[in-house]
Amino acid sequence: MNVDTIAKPHERLAAYLTKDMAAVSTLIRERMASKHAPRIPEVTAHLVEAGGKRLRPMLTLAAARMCGYDGPYHVHLAATVEFIHTATLLHDDVVDESEQRRGRPTANLLWDNQSSVLVGDYLFARSFQLMTEPGSMQVMQILSNAAATIAEGEVLQLTAARNLATDESVYLQVVRGKTAALFSAATQVGGVIADAPDAQVQALYDYGDALGVAFQIVDDLLDYQGDTGATGKNIGDDFRERKLTLPVIKAVAKADDTERAFWVRTIEKGRQENGDLEHALALLNKHAALGATKADALAWAEKAKEALAVLPDHDVKNMLSDIADYVVSRIS
Amino acid sequence: MNVDTIAKPHERLAAYLTKDMAAVSTLIRERMASKHAPRIPEVTAHLVEAGGKRLRPMLTLAAARMCGYDGPYHVHLAATVEFIHTATLLHDDVVDESEQRRGRPTANLLWDNQSSVLVGDYLFARSFQLMTEPGSMQVMQILSNAAATIAEGEVLQLTAARNLATDESVYLQVVRGKTAALFSAATQVGGVIADAPDAQVQALYDYGDALGVAFQIVDDLLDYQGDTGATGKNIGDDFRERKLTLPVIKAVAKADDTERAFWVRTIEKGRQENGDLEHALALLNKHAALGATKADALAWAEKAKEALAVLPDHDVKNMLSDIADYVVSRIS
Repeated sequence: MNVDTIAKPHERLAAYLTKDMAAVSTLIRERMASKHAPRIPEVTAHLVEAGGKRLRPMLTLAAARMCGYDGPYHVHLAATVEFIHTATLLHDDVVDESEQRRGRPTANLLWDNQSSVLVGDYLFARSFQLMTEPGSMQVMQILSNAAATIAEGEVLQLTAARNLATDESVYLQVVRGKTAALFSAATQVGGVIADAPDAQVQALYDYGDALGVAFQIVDDLLDYQGDTGATGKNIGDDFRERKLTLPVIKAVAKADDTERAFWVRTIEKGRQENGDLEHALALLNKHAALGATKADALAWAEKAKEALAVLPDHDVKNMLSDIADYVVSRIS
Repeated sequence: MNVDTIAKPHERLAAYLTKDMAAVSTLIRERMASKHAPRIPEVTAHLVEAGGKRLRPMLTLAAARMCGYDGPYHVHLAATVEFIHTATLLHDDVVDESEQRRGRPTANLLWDNQSSVLVGDYLFARSFQLMTEPGSMQVMQILSNAAATIAEGEVLQLTAARNLATDESVYLQVVRGKTAALFSAATQVGGVIADAPDAQVQALYDYGDALGVAFQIVDDLLDYQGDTGATGKNIGDDFRERKLTLPVIKAVAKADDTERAFWVRTIEKGRQENGDLEHALALLNKHAALGATKADALAWAEKAKEALAVLPDHDVKNMLSDIADYVVSRIS
């Protein structure tokens, strides 16, 4: 298959990294095994073999390759990143009481909350075993810091999500935690394992951070303007779950007293009635909140691309730049 | 306070380690903080300041001191062990839907399951940050292996607990995972950080392992014969929760057809009626299951004490030996 004929940049990158990704898959299957508790690989397989894009482990491999690394430990780090991601998905679905993920029933629905919590814990532990194997202190610090930042972001979201005092800076804090921290750790450790100069490692961090923020803003925007067929999400899920995301934060900031009362009732108090979603959409429209959110996402994608400047010229570099464009193309 | 005048050996050890334990408390308070999510220290403080005996971190400090270590990283490892323990308690209470722990309402009851899951994740991540700080690969491997073994034991328990096919070897596997793995890791890393010879590190592992198994068997036995006032547990909780523990496993192994049908109905199918607990106790008595369970606990305590033989003579060594006796004294 000729990499150049593939349209989507993450698929181009996957084709470029075919061998590395196969090694990651093998390692993941090896390490998700459990001699004593068969429930563990069952639950894990349900999630890791559901056909996710595996963007995060690809970012690690891509960063390592771009910085001239030649193996074998980028594979361990990519698997570490995927295990952390899978563990957080299992726990998120319990926390959100979700019933669908990637178009399939969630593990908490198919098995139970207990299995999701404990298998998630197992995968966290496995990820820490994996990250010690390259023997790099800096790698371990980056990845264990990321795990702490993710959990912190999730807890912050729990307390901030239904609170109208949540402003854009708190939103950014949450997004940096729950999404961008793993993107930036994924790219950064690729550079560290390759022994790249500090400026390049910093650039990889900046790229991952900005890409992650753009990714999450797009996700939150699509919740209000997406096409259910294309995204697999229903319009207004976040509104019904009373999650204060960027579009609403922008509308609340411009709300008059009547509008504010509407947001207090629907988001803070959760007393939603028929027609409320339509009214919410009208308010987002009135204050041009969706357009402003889109502009923010595009700016973060631009920032991600700019960060790549100091990195060495490489096929992968162009693909990473295209991925930043692709992430926001869903809303363009 | 003269250490010799204190009756209980774990209190004697705590007095001996006063300064070290104060340093552990300070470090725990420092590391449970969160700049952005105040919910994290609130939930953590509820648990870590509830007056647990902190036996596990004391074991780490004791092992390090006994092997001549002089600081400062035993404190980090002790805090790591306590964070892993606290994280598993938070998740266990969600999994078991518990409402009481150490005589107080559980975090899942006071806040919610979401907070318990996510704050537990945060503490796991914090424990991994802490364990990297001494810079010892062996320490990181031992502690990340322990975290995986704990989760594996909990998942195994989930699938084995209500299955009458669960025999003593599966029970031991569960107990080794959910309880003994952290005890043995706690003692072992104390030796490793002190650079003790391999035979001593192995002995510390063996002591922690046997102590942990004895500890859990005693806990399971007290569930059928304890004094509620002294233990804070209600007789028959495990029976009502349909947990197949060692006393019942021993009775099931000797059950005739009628008795087997009783266990199938009450444990496997969970159709319990008035008078069932009394009948279960009668069957445990008939087959001398409580006595046999007690004998097992005493044998594990003996094994723990024997493991100490190769360790250097030290005040702490005698206290550790007494702690093994003390753990089983609750059932003597």
